[in-house]
Amino acid sequence: MYTSEQLLEKVKVALAEVKFERKPEELYNPIKYTLNLGGKRIRPVSVLLACEMFNGDIEKAINPAIAIEIFHNFTLLHDDIMDNAPIRRGKETVFKKWNANIAILSGDTMFALAYKYLIKTDSQILQNILDIFTTAAIEVCEGQQYDMNFENLENVCLDDYMEMIRLKTAVLIAASMKTGAVIGKANQQDAHNVYKFGECIGLAFQLQDDLLDVYADTNKFGKETGGDIATNKKTFLYIQSLQEAKGEQAKMLRHYFSSTNFNREEKINAVKNIYDELGVKKTTEKRINDYYIKAFEYFNLIKVADDKKIKLKNFADQMMHRDY
Amino acid sequence: MYTSEQLLEKVKVALAEVKFERKPEELYNPIKYTLNLGGKRIRPVSVLLACEMFNGDIEKAINPAIAIEIFHNFTLLHDDIMDNAPIRRGKETVFKKWNANIAILSGDTMFALAYKYLIKTDSQILQNILDIFTTAAIEVCEGQQYDMNFENLENVCLDDYMEMIRLKTAVLIAASMKTGAVIGKANQQDAHNVYKFGECIGLAFQLQDDLLDVYADTNKFGKETGGDIATNKKTFLYIQSLQEAKGEQAKMLRHYFSSTNFNREEKINAVKNIYDELGVKKTTEKRINDYYIKAFEYFNLIKVADDKKIKLKNFADQMMHRDY
Repeated sequence: MYTSEQLLEKVKVALAEVKFERKPEELYNPIKYTLNLGGKRIRPVSVLLACEMFNGDIEKAINPAIAIEIFHNFTLLHDDIMDNAPIRRGKETVFKKWNANIAILSGDTMFALAYKYLIKTDSQILQNILDIFTTAAIEVCEGQQYDMNFENLENVCLDDYMEMIRLKTAVLIAASMKTGAVIGKANQQDAHNVYKFGECIGLAFQLQDDLLDVYADTNKFGKETGGDIATNKKTFLYIQSLQEAKGEQAKMLRHYFSSTNFNREEKINAVKNIYDELGVKKTTEKRINDYYIKAFEYFNLIKVADDKKIKLKNFADQMMHRDY
Repeated sequence: MYTSEQLLEKVKVALAEVKFERKPEELYNPIKYTLNLGGKRIRPVSVLLACEMFNGDIEKAINPAIAIEIFHNFTLLHDDIMDNAPIRRGKETVFKKWNANIAILSGDTMFALAYKYLIKTDSQILQNILDIFTTAAIEVCEGQQYDMNFENLENVCLDDYMEMIRLKTAVLIAASMKTGAVIGKANQQDAHNVYKFGECIGLAFQLQDDLLDVYADTNKFGKETGGDIATNKKTFLYIQSLQEAKGEQAKMLRHYFSSTNFNREEKINAVKNIYDELGVKKTTEKRINDYYIKAFEYFNLIKVADDKKIKLKNFADQMMHRDY
């Protein structure tokens, strides 16, 4: 049995062992660069933790874990082109460092590479693992499309927003945990409950992300807060505020979110003031907690001894109560 | 037993049955549009023909055949963004009709969708089928990268060019045929020979494409000839010519391929004249025939009764001796 930190170490070692002996370099250097950018490696660690919870063989879970992390990084790579984003994890995005064509094609290659790792899975569970993964992959694309659609919509309702982040973020965390469970030979019901647990945690995780972007301690956050406000991103906080705002407040919110040509600091302060007036921090925290509670309703249904459950529970707690 | 035409019909029916009930429409409409653009459906028919050659069950080959066709269309979709191509099969490209972001994301979704069809394969051969497909998918990306690299290289040698088209075009035809063979329970040696046959046919097929672009009968070709010359595409004909050309000829070739700001007709005529002087049509035909002969060296090694082989042989003949 390993600690979460040891499992993270295993993921890092396995990722470092991904070989790039093939050519052309123009295709593989951006992939290497992307996988070396770091990140919290939440998804692969989730695979391993869920596998361990069911007494599964971690060694059999490593390849699918790496596959999911490669896939996740592929989606970031393509998202950065679509969002015209210059920086990712403090470094230039592939699209910026090389160009859009290189980013498209090295992304495509990463998607295929993810399957290369996935198909090393034991043949008895291969079909199941592939189905979980491929379904999630399609849903992530759907989520990204909704996210892009929202940019051009004046009014997005909270239900539609939650469905978007479910697809774009939560299902892959859910699929990661279910993958680990299936490798650990969990029965169908348990695997389902692990999935639903991961889905709720994923939703809470994204709302936490929305919240931190505005209210994080800049020192711990590692980057400036207010990025979502500056770029007019329709987050939970914005949609919730617009729903509650009346008269002048609503007018100001719409005004500031109609353009990016404002003084950054002034805009962020003004919007944050409205958020504060409306108590949106508390509303978001309340919603995060609701998902947390719902997550553990599913978690408690999983028929595994409590001491086996501790590590995944702690890991989920960390994901939710992070301050960066 | 079906004729090639009947198998093509089966492919068309199966493609028409691909369901797009999922949302958002912004993601799925471009996919539907792409799959409805038509095309020769060479790859899926190759899967079915190879399967039949080994007395395999066609019904089991339909899903992988569709998977490969969806994948192929995904690569065209992304290639069109990278090549900034406005027209494909006489219609606007997705990238042009919608936009680059939609084209990136609906392409990604098609790649995942291809796996959705692929994983319906019988579990005993699933790992093998997935490995053939995924290896080819990675190689196709590598081929596209080489193709893009060549745009910025002044001198491309014939060997490098042949390796590029092997990756970009031939391996997917080879993989299609091998997939059919494996579903038909061919032994490893036969499956390998089918692959090598498809690879040689694929190389000849692409050279034929290069040739037709310059020397096709416009009425049969369905579009204007000379497109590759107009866009400075370094085809077999160009590279071969540059290798043979001396003094003024070489200078003229380089001159015309240095820009797209020439009068289209004048440029095509001038380059075609040099090709004619150097007899490059004959050289290309000779090379096509060499691959054709090599293809049938592998084909003859396949341990299947001659009457079983006729349909795949005829299909390959058609691919090679087409005039459009």
